[in-house]
Amino acid sequence: MPDVSLLETFPSPSDQPYVIEHVNEEFTSVCPVTGHPDFGEITLRYQPATGGVCVELKSLKLYYQSFRNEGIYYEAVTNRIRDDLAGAMSPSWLQVITNWRGRGGVRSVIRADYGSPPAEFQGR
Amino acid sequence: MPDVSLLETFPSPSDQPYVIEHVNEEFTSVCPVTGHPDFGEITLRYQPATGGVCVELKSLKLYYQSFRNEGIYYEAVTNRIRDDLAGAMSPSWLQVITNWRGRGGVRSVIRADYGSPPAEFQGR
Amino acid sequence: MPDVSLLETFPSPSDQPYVIEHVNEEFTSVCPVTGHPDFGEITLRYQPATGGVCVELKSLKLYYQSFRNEGIYYEAVTNRIRDDLAGAMSPSWLQVITNWRGRGGVRSVIRADYGSPPAEFQGR
Amino acid sequence: MPDVSLLETFPSPSDQPYVIEHVNEEFTSVCPVTGHPDFGEITLRYQPATGGVCVELKSLKLYYQSFRNEGIYYEAVTNRIRDDLAGAMSPSWLQVITNWRGRGGVRSVIRADYGSPPAEFQGR
Amino acid sequence: MPDVSLLETFPSPSDQPYVIEHVNEEFTSVCPVTGHPDFGEITLRYQPATGGVCVELKSLKLYYQSFRNEGIYYEAVTNRIRDDLAGAMSPSWLQVITNWRGRGGVRSVIRADYGSPPAEFQGR
Amino acid sequence: MPDVSLLETFPSPSDQPYVIEHVNEEFTSVCPVTGHPDFGEITLRYQPATGGVCVELKSLKLYYQSFRNEGIYYEAVTNRIRDDLAGAMSPSWLQVITNWRGRGGVRSVIRADYGSPPAEFQGR
Amino acid sequence: MPDVSLLETFPSPSDQPYVIEHVNEEFTSVCPVTGHPDFGEITLRYQPATGGVCVELKSLKLYYQSFRNEGIYYEAVTNRIRDDLAGAMSPSWLQVITNWRGRGGVRSVIRADYGSPPAEFQGR
Amino acid sequence: MPDVSLLETFPSPSDQPYVIEHVNEEFTSVCPVTGHPDFGEITLRYQPATGGVCVELKSLKLYYQSFRNEGIYYEAVTNRIRDDLAGAMSPSWLQVITNWRGRGGVRSVIRADYGSPPAEFQGR
Amino acid sequence: MPDVSLLETFPSPSDQPYVIEHVNEEFTSVCPVTGHPDFGEITLRYQPATGGVCVELKSLKLYYQSFRNEGIYYEAVTNRIRDDLAGAMSPSWLQVITNWRGRGGVRSVIRADYGSPPAEFQGR
Amino acid sequence: MPDVSLLETFPSPSDQPYVIEHVNEEFTSVCPVTGHPDFGEITLRYQPATGGVCVELKSLKLYYQSFRNEGIYYEAVTNRIRDDLAGAMSPSWLQVITNWRGRGGVRSVIRADYGSPPAEFQGR
Repeated sequence: MPDVSLLETFPSPSDQPYVIEHVNEEFTSVCPVTGHPDFGEITLRYQPATGGVCVELKSLKLYYQSFRNEGIYYEAVTNRIRDDLAGAMSPSWLQVITNWRGRGGVRSVIRADYGSPPAEFQGR
Repeated sequence: MPDVSLLETFPSPSDQPYVIEHVNEEFTSVCPVTGHPDFGEITLRYQPATGGVCVELKSLKLYYQSFRNEGIYYEAVTNRIRDDLAGAMSPSWLQVITNWRGRGGVRSVIRADYGSPPAEFQGR
Repeated sequence: MPDVSLLETFPSPSDQPYVIEHVNEEFTSVCPVTGHPDFGEITLRYQPATGGVCVELKSLKLYYQSFRNEGIYYEAVTNRIRDDLAGAMSPSWLQVITNWRGRGGVRSVIRADYGSPPAEFQGR
Repeated sequence: MPDVSLLETFPSPSDQPYVIEHVNEEFTSVCPVTGHPDFGEITLRYQPATGGVCVELKSLKLYYQSFRNEGIYYEAVTNRIRDDLAGAMSPSWLQVITNWRGRGGVRSVIRADYGSPPAEFQGR
Repeated sequence: MPDVSLLETFPSPSDQPYVIEHVNEEFTSVCPVTGHPDFGEITLRYQPATGGVCVELKSLKLYYQSFRNEGIYYEAVTNRIRDDLAGAMSPSWLQVITNWRGRGGVRSVIRADYGSPPAEFQGR
Repeated sequence: MPDVSLLETFPSPSDQPYVIEHVNEEFTSVCPVTGHPDFGEITLRYQPATGGVCVELKSLKLYYQSFRNEGIYYEAVTNRIRDDLAGAMSPSWLQVITNWRGRGGVRSVIRADYGSPPAEFQGR
Repeated sequence: MPDVSLLETFPSPSDQPYVIEHVNEEFTSVCPVTGHPDFGEITLRYQPATGGVCVELKSLKLYYQSFRNEGIYYEAVTNRIRDDLAGAMSPSWLQVITNWRGRGGVRSVIRADYGSPPAEFQGR
Repeated sequence: MPDVSLLETFPSPSDQPYVIEHVNEEFTSVCPVTGHPDFGEITLRYQPATGGVCVELKSLKLYYQSFRNEGIYYEAVTNRIRDDLAGAMSPSWLQVITNWRGRGGVRSVIRADYGSPPAEFQGR
Repeated sequence: MPDVSLLETFPSPSDQPYVIEHVNEEFTSVCPVTGHPDFGEITLRYQPATGGVCVELKSLKLYYQSFRNEGIYYEAVTNRIRDDLAGAMSPSWLQVITNWRGRGGVRSVIRADYGSPPAEFQGR
Repeated sequence: MPDVSLLETFPSPSDQPYVIEHVNEEFTSVCPVTGHPDFGEITLRYQPATGGVCVELKSLKLYYQSFRNEGIYYEAVTNRIRDDLAGAMSPSWLQVITNWRGRGGVRSVIRADYGSPPAEFQGR
């Protein structure tokens, strides 16, 4: 079951703006209708708040693994990860992109943002 | 025959702005002049309206399959899908891109929009 | 309905051994169980018999199109095309490879041969 | 000899803005200095005028074929195609990109526009 | 738990030799030591026996899914799938290749055969 | 019109066996039925005879250009080039592979050999 | 141990704005927690100040090599390189992107800027 | 020795704005410190002035070849080519990008502009 | 310092012939002449002896890491790994391929075998 | 001028058979007819003789650089390198493959062998 309490943070090593991207290529959850597994790639991008925190990489991995046997739609996974990570870090900006392998010839990508990217990263 | 009544929707799981993309790699219709089959890939991108709906993935697939034996031009397919999906979802923004395999050395791509992309997705 | 009578041939322009390959990237038939369309690529390779014939390219395309609304399994499509083309040309050697797009995360390739490849093409 | 009279048009099926791209991968003309053939790829992108016309695909192909034995420079081909197609369609916007295979280690790309892209296609 | 009883077969549609390949891009099991999930791609190739059977595609998928929460090593997965499928089909030849995503900078591929490939497929 | 007299040769600089490959990416001829241009890539591989000759590169290019406005089938082009070059050089071994761009979704490759490859090049 | 004194500079050969990019594909440091090596690619982009300096390429390479046995986090490496190079060159603009190979299925990219890109490079 | 007098020009065939790109994949000069050869790719993009000139392609190639045995730094090559070509053509806009093969694991790209790109090409 | 005692083994789970491949993409050692780091990819392929052992994956990784600060030539690394692993496992067949990133424009690959591949893997 | 005396060797570190490959991506010489530079990639593969020698990598690079301003045909370059390296090392087997960038739409590859590859490397 998705477990936000798995997420751990550490203080950002710089107060100048910078952006962090972690791509998890091995995400899996379960389709709530058919019970078949879904497979996807989760891209997380964020800018720590000034004097803020970063998410610890191993805890992020364990948090993603907690979706393994959860029945949940693509759209709901994406919004939940955005909300959980924004809640854990209160970053200046955060973006979650989920990229799902095809089902019956249809591939899907869902993108959700929290806040606006800083000026120097606009349009990435 | 293209059948818009096949499209089903469900309530969007979030009221924060996010964007959904479904790529159907297996679209086929028929050239109205020669009767030969056309093959293409349909990319749908949209932002649900606040308090709005999403298109259900299996119903979208069946809707696309209803073009299988229809004689229809590239330009007309693209505009019709744009209109049918905008009608079914009333989204904040919607984009349809049809990418057709070559005929006699010419490949074609048609793109039609409904509404404007939200600021944070401008220029994608 | 698959129609072998669509296949036309013409005399091979040379009696020295050579090999011809035609790749059709736009094959579609229908799954006999679910009724959903299947999409694939058909590779035909053959060596004309000495004093033999070649298959005419446009007739080959029309023959492939005659499977469009046929409910038929991958394995049966492959063996049928091998048998139909071997019957129409009586070549020295013939090979059919069907390469199917994924269904639920599984991609399939089926290969059927008629006769043995000539020594100089062995192991291709 | 390039022949603009080969171009045929048909009424655009929609009055909402949309963009059409046709890529011809098999263009050839002749170098006016050396007499050697040149080979390239022509990309045409345009937005039909409201209540305007689209170029018919087969006529476009024949128009391109009329350059086959014409001695003409890269820069002149590109500007001529832009002018001929803008004249035939009076579109809201039109773009021609010619991409030429290398000669002596130098590859060339020429791009010519007619009008400005509509806001939602700016920066493509 | 891996469940060989999920595998179903159907009679091969031809008695001439041919080869079938199914690639499952979405395999996952669990590392028996660390408890972390492993992800891989399973390639199955086989030649049905004369008068023999083929494995039914959906049953193959369900069989693979039965490894989802099993703690098992790469080498054992590969040999078990080879043995289970050879037992279910008694084919002329069968090959299983498991291709695992990296762990700590090391990617692994395991290959196990049952019987020898027929002459015309030797050296593939 | 294809003109074998354009081919020039020079003495091979070595009597030890070696193999030469020239790939012409810019071949064009004309379909004898429709009059539409065909485009392809011609690969020539050969081993000069001991004390034999090599084809001069610029003369090879002019020879290929002499097919530009010739109406001729794929199979005939391939066998003709094989025969013309074998006649001009009397090599130990020669291979011609013509690779044609798609027509209506079908791509073609034709391969013709003269003699057998020397042992150390067998199976390339 | 990272050693900023290794960095050497030379006067920029032009006072017109231009941008320099050096990509080091062979960076390695050590994870401060596990002691395992980390591997990555460092991209440096900068615009020299008017009348300013460029970093000498060999000295840059030696500076990067000084991280070889240092235990340091991804985020800290990135910010430190940004600060060290900005300090050594006082450029108009500088950008550091570190792209790390995967660990347990997660790849990471960190980007840090110093100053704003000049107008003609905005949005790169 | 780099020789700007090799550059020849011809009148632009159009007064409407358009952009020309020539990519030379075979540039070589010599490192002034080690005496070892450097290899790179030079991309030139420019918009001719209204009523202006274009650079003749063969003269451009000879100009590039005149750097073959010159000892010169990456940064100086790039600025010199920008200055020489801007001087020869007085274009509306010109851009030179030099992309150098790796040395000791470091690849470099240098970009220099003359003038600003016209509005319709901004952000390319 | 390379330390063969780091290698651990476990009993092979099958007595039927099969082949195991582990690709380490993150190998680094030091050039004994210049002291600069070398980077490469090590591919290990082997067939366990009947009733034999497999190398444990984590121990293999630690063994490779023990070369990190060792000054050693490409040829010597390859032969040493071959000898150490053959000594630790006494396999039926073993192959080591080291693939080194370029130095001054030269990339290198070294391949060393122990024993002969079993018949069904010949020619891989 | 090509200078075989630049080649240096060192004793092979193993008497078991193994194969070494060095790929030089930055070879350039001059066309003896036109005086224009030629660019190519040289692949050297060899098996040292038992108790034999290896070519030292830096000396190989300098030897290749000695062709920089030499007017010489593709075929002659290839045979000369084969002969020079076989003379310097007396290896069990040696192979030289030269791969040349296109000229007027024609790319060339020349391959010359010295001796026969050992059984375990046959057919590579």
